[in-house]
Amino acid sequence: MEDRMAYYNEEALKLHKALKGKVEVKSKCEVKSLDKLSLLYSPGVAAPCIEISKDPEAIYDYTWKGNTVAIVSDGSAVLGLGNIGPKAGLPVMEGKSLLFKNFANVNAVPIMLDVKNPDKLIETVEAIAPTFGGINLEDIKAPDCFYIEEELKSRLDIPVFHDDQHGTAIVVLAALINAFKYMNKNLEEAKVVVSGTGAAGSAIIQILNQYGVDNIYAYNREGVVNIEEEKNKKSKLSHILPYLAKDNDAESLSDLLVNADVFIGVSASDILSEEDIKKMNFDPVIFALANPKPEIPYELAKKAGAAIVGTGRSDYPNQINNVLAFPGVFKGALSVQATEINDEMKLEAAQAIARVIPDEDISESNIIPKVTNKKVVEAVADAVSKKAVEMGVIRNAK
Amino acid sequence: MEDRMAYYNEEALKLHKALKGKVEVKSKCEVKSLDKLSLLYSPGVAAPCIEISKDPEAIYDYTWKGNTVAIVSDGSAVLGLGNIGPKAGLPVMEGKSLLFKNFANVNAVPIMLDVKNPDKLIETVEAIAPTFGGINLEDIKAPDCFYIEEELKSRLDIPVFHDDQHGTAIVVLAALINAFKYMNKNLEEAKVVVSGTGAAGSAIIQILNQYGVDNIYAYNREGVVNIEEEKNKKSKLSHILPYLAKDNDAESLSDLLVNADVFIGVSASDILSEEDIKKMNFDPVIFALANPKPEIPYELAKKAGAAIVGTGRSDYPNQINNVLAFPGVFKGALSVQATEINDEMKLEAAQAIARVIPDEDISESNIIPKVTNKKVVEAVADAVSKKAVEMGVIRNAK
Repeated sequence: MEDRMAYYNEEALKLHKALKGKVEVKSKCEVKSLDKLSLLYSPGVAAPCIEISKDPEAIYDYTWKGNTVAIVSDGSAVLGLGNIGPKAGLPVMEGKSLLFKNFANVNAVPIMLDVKNPDKLIETVEAIAPTFGGINLEDIKAPDCFYIEEELKSRLDIPVFHDDQHGTAIVVLAALINAFKYMNKNLEEAKVVVSGTGAAGSAIIQILNQYGVDNIYAYNREGVVNIEEEKNKKSKLSHILPYLAKDNDAESLSDLLVNADVFIGVSASDILSEEDIKKMNFDPVIFALANPKPEIPYELAKKAGAAIVGTGRSDYPNQINNVLAFPGVFKGALSVQATEINDEMKLEAAQAIARVIPDEDISESNIIPKVTNKKVVEAVADAVSKKAVEMGVIRNAK
Repeated sequence: MEDRMAYYNEEALKLHKALKGKVEVKSKCEVKSLDKLSLLYSPGVAAPCIEISKDPEAIYDYTWKGNTVAIVSDGSAVLGLGNIGPKAGLPVMEGKSLLFKNFANVNAVPIMLDVKNPDKLIETVEAIAPTFGGINLEDIKAPDCFYIEEELKSRLDIPVFHDDQHGTAIVVLAALINAFKYMNKNLEEAKVVVSGTGAAGSAIIQILNQYGVDNIYAYNREGVVNIEEEKNKKSKLSHILPYLAKDNDAESLSDLLVNADVFIGVSASDILSEEDIKKMNFDPVIFALANPKPEIPYELAKKAGAAIVGTGRSDYPNQINNVLAFPGVFKGALSVQATEINDEMKLEAAQAIARVIPDEDISESNIIPKVTNKKVVEAVADAVSKKAVEMGVIRNAK
């Protein structure tokens, strides 16, 4: 694995240096004649400007707004690298832009923000919003990300979606749905332990509860999350407390896992042992998503008795990767000019991803589609756009 | 002309509606294999992130920053349409982006800003700067634009260029250089009257004075600009006063034009009469740049005795269009990682545009290259980049 990482690093640097930018802004038409220039620029361009000044909604008819999102980050929580700042985070957002285009044909503009605090970030995104049909928040540290997303959702009339939260949560739910279908067990009755209460963990807890799972416990670097204790202090976790099961007397992750059916780790390498897994119910599901080194290595989890194991890595079965979610989620939302991406749309997205694998093809090593599966984006976009239309969270048809 | 405008409007609307965005974000490589995905995105993308976090200048090696500008506008002074706001201005900025790519192969991202005041605009641009190698300010109303540009120049370490000011000024100077060369007269000794003291007029006055023209007078909707009067009030024109000739006793545009050699209008339709031109020196130069209706129609200006007439329109000789300047100016600045676009670089740009027409080809109807002339952008980029290197206003070579 060390060798492979060294290879990736070297090759990735070479490739990035050769490209000097993984994406570019391209014109959709050539301007070879004066006549064309006069239509696309002055004086012809005045006509669409005037139409939009009369009816702001016409911006969707005459510009790129309806198919364009901003990928906004301050670089404060990039991959496993942490707070590396806006400049160092740019390669990730360019990569995301590349995926948006390749998978969903959506224009995505990386916008790295040099801002001092969450309020400045919010103000900046609000200021740049006119150009964009949606805002994909990315790699912003918890707990700031929760406040920033909520505030922007209330201020803007276009979808705002923090992918580290909801993209991950959607794919985890999709994978769990198929895992439980394969085992003929009822997910809603499962005891689930989530390790990590940052962006991803919080959103996973929320979406699972919204799906119908009541028996959810949380663990983080400070220990087992205790609802009563958190209520008694100004807790950074107040947004997840309503989704958790009542406190029990577990004092360690190991205790918490007794009789659990599912372990979901979005936390740190090697915090789960074979013994921990052995304490869980028969045929447990282990999603060890810390990257690149999971909470427990795939092989060890299997050896300890896990029925199904998922990781964030492409070199093992069942890769939980949010690229399965965000391109289709935004494609679907943009296609019907949705004004938001709400919880119901996210649940639909998860179910759509799960359904891409026909029941008869689901297996312990095939609970989630491959990231290269081209059917996913259409399935997700279709489900998300239908839900938006059904709920009426779309702009009025003109 | 009414017919032609109606045609343009109708065709322009059709074309804009069909395109739904004149530009797009495209990926520079396909992501068909998992291996490619792993290099361009997680986990490979961590390598360039780490390099940039160690040395922020490495962002120029591994991302699109070095060839990407933001076209920033609040839509407060769009074309001849005025303050139509950020949404309605988007088609113009997309058009500009199209020209950046077509002419100079520079990525240009339209960013429309919904901001309440100049300070918020400045803060927003400062916040989004990490992603970009340069800032093209566009269609921001005077006098805010002067403060905004100065402030951003002092805060950012990348070139900031307000095209309505400097793009226009560069092309006007280029055209005057060739006009005077054709007439075998000395531009530096000319008496020049500039009508309009907004963004374009102010920058024209400044660049002409920096080129060596001392005898410059200004006129605007409030009348002849009087230096002493302006000094006695909190003047919005304080930034141009140092470049103007001493006050004389002219009280009208007509008076001011007595014995003038050059009239430059960046003001309003039909404010110049044949009689006005007849008061000027023999063989005067008339640049009537109000768009689409100039300060005096081309034919009337010629009939009144103008030796050389320029307009902003493509259907008459000598079109003064800033597309001759901005693509090459930014291409040149970006190519050497210039940290600014200063006055000396602008003067070089003007002279480079002028030189594109060989002396023997200069005529009264050919003082400025056509906007479709492909030699212009290279000539400008070359001149601008050489000046930046000569002056040392570039990032240190690594």
